[in-house]
Amino acid sequence: MSPGPAGYGRFYGVGVGPGDPELITVRAARVLGRVDVVFSACAHGDGESLARRIAEPYLAPSARVVPLHFPMTRNRREVEAAWDENARRVLGVLEAPADAAFITLGDPSTFSTFTYLWRRLSALAPGLEAEVVPGITSYQAAAAQAGEPLAEGEESLVIVSGAKGGAQVERFRALADNLVVLKVYRRAEEVARALREGSELEGVVVSRCGLPGERVHRGLDALTAGSDSYYTLVIAKNRRRREWPLA
Amino acid sequence: MSPGPAGYGRFYGVGVGPGDPELITVRAARVLGRVDVVFSACAHGDGESLARRIAEPYLAPSARVVPLHFPMTRNRREVEAAWDENARRVLGVLEAPADAAFITLGDPSTFSTFTYLWRRLSALAPGLEAEVVPGITSYQAAAAQAGEPLAEGEESLVIVSGAKGGAQVERFRALADNLVVLKVYRRAEEVARALREGSELEGVVVSRCGLPGERVHRGLDALTAGSDSYYTLVIAKNRRRREWPLA
Repeated sequence: MSPGPAGYGRFYGVGVGPGDPELITVRAARVLGRVDVVFSACAHGDGESLARRIAEPYLAPSARVVPLHFPMTRNRREVEAAWDENARRVLGVLEAPADAAFITLGDPSTFSTFTYLWRRLSALAPGLEAEVVPGITSYQAAAAQAGEPLAEGEESLVIVSGAKGGAQVERFRALADNLVVLKVYRRAEEVARALREGSELEGVVVSRCGLPGERVHRGLDALTAGSDSYYTLVIAKNRRRREWPLA
Repeated sequence: MSPGPAGYGRFYGVGVGPGDPELITVRAARVLGRVDVVFSACAHGDGESLARRIAEPYLAPSARVVPLHFPMTRNRREVEAAWDENARRVLGVLEAPADAAFITLGDPSTFSTFTYLWRRLSALAPGLEAEVVPGITSYQAAAAQAGEPLAEGEESLVIVSGAKGGAQVERFRALADNLVVLKVYRRAEEVARALREGSELEGVVVSRCGLPGERVHRGLDALTAGSDSYYTLVIAKNRRRREWPLA
């Protein structure tokens, strides 16, 4: 490794994409092949092991993979304490100095744990720099798989989470030309109800995109039966708002 | 090549990312290395040659690159006619049968000419199938470069175009936690005015991300001076709406 500014090892936030190891970028593959340590964290289900599985074929034989524990609690103090501790562990490696990457499913800028880690790391070590390597998001992969555009011409694209239920859907359903709802898991019925009410949304439901058990359902009815995977999302389109796209 | 369903060559819609050849996916690189013909089209500035430059290092030596003309007019008939003609050219290659990829800057599902081409192609040849290979969007690359998250926790992310001015910004500015404005070129002052009025948006302006002449400006003031590149976008955040992200 070659020490970066302020004598630290180089630090990378690497998006490893939605699941298929071929959907990581050429740069992500190159970075993973040259770092000494790879940190992996996820709060949900098998996210940590999935990110690790994607990264695995690209790692140098000598690379160490270190999981970071992210407690599943709504207690803010507990979460903050855990992330401070995780940031200190990463900093310890960079101070050695060794090069390290923090891997994250999807894209490090989009609803990613990288944001929390980086905020704490840069507070601990203001001279530290990070290179962020973007990654393909779950909703881009789902759109590709379903053959459904996310947005055209002068349309709008709104991306929200369904983790807390239908509130975000209600906020945007009349206004958005295209509405993507991530993390539908557990609140599927509520999200489906919010998508149906008061507008003319059509949709595609994609589960476990690029993973074993992948499913693509046309229509929002697929949601009411309940959703069996954290990796379920909806791409909904407001047909009323559809305009001539090339104008 | 190996003929796909219905005797056609295999057809791929390939996102080549925002500009840096390293930001294409491993799958895109593999697909580009095995197709016989690469079609490239763009309505704006140097988009066609940029997409071609990104794809170039990954192509088989025997591959042919064919530019598709996309006329810069608001006359719907003329545009439709050109795209029908382009679709017939692509179909001619697939019928040979040869394998072909249509390359597009960014992601083929996100504001992409691939959508128009594919709609026409599948009307001409209902048995035809396409494999869509997702790509990194300009706004993901810009967020990575600026070190600015696009969205956290339960926030919303809204993506609109500034090509027609400030109307889309006005529609979403009070509601969106994070608002990305693409294609600010030419309407920069109007977009800046819309971003400033009636809400508490802060922003980062990124021009020519990953290209020679790249610039990252903190604050929306960078927009009022006018924007000298088609590849200018804004990542704006509504600080009023910011919530505890992990709840």
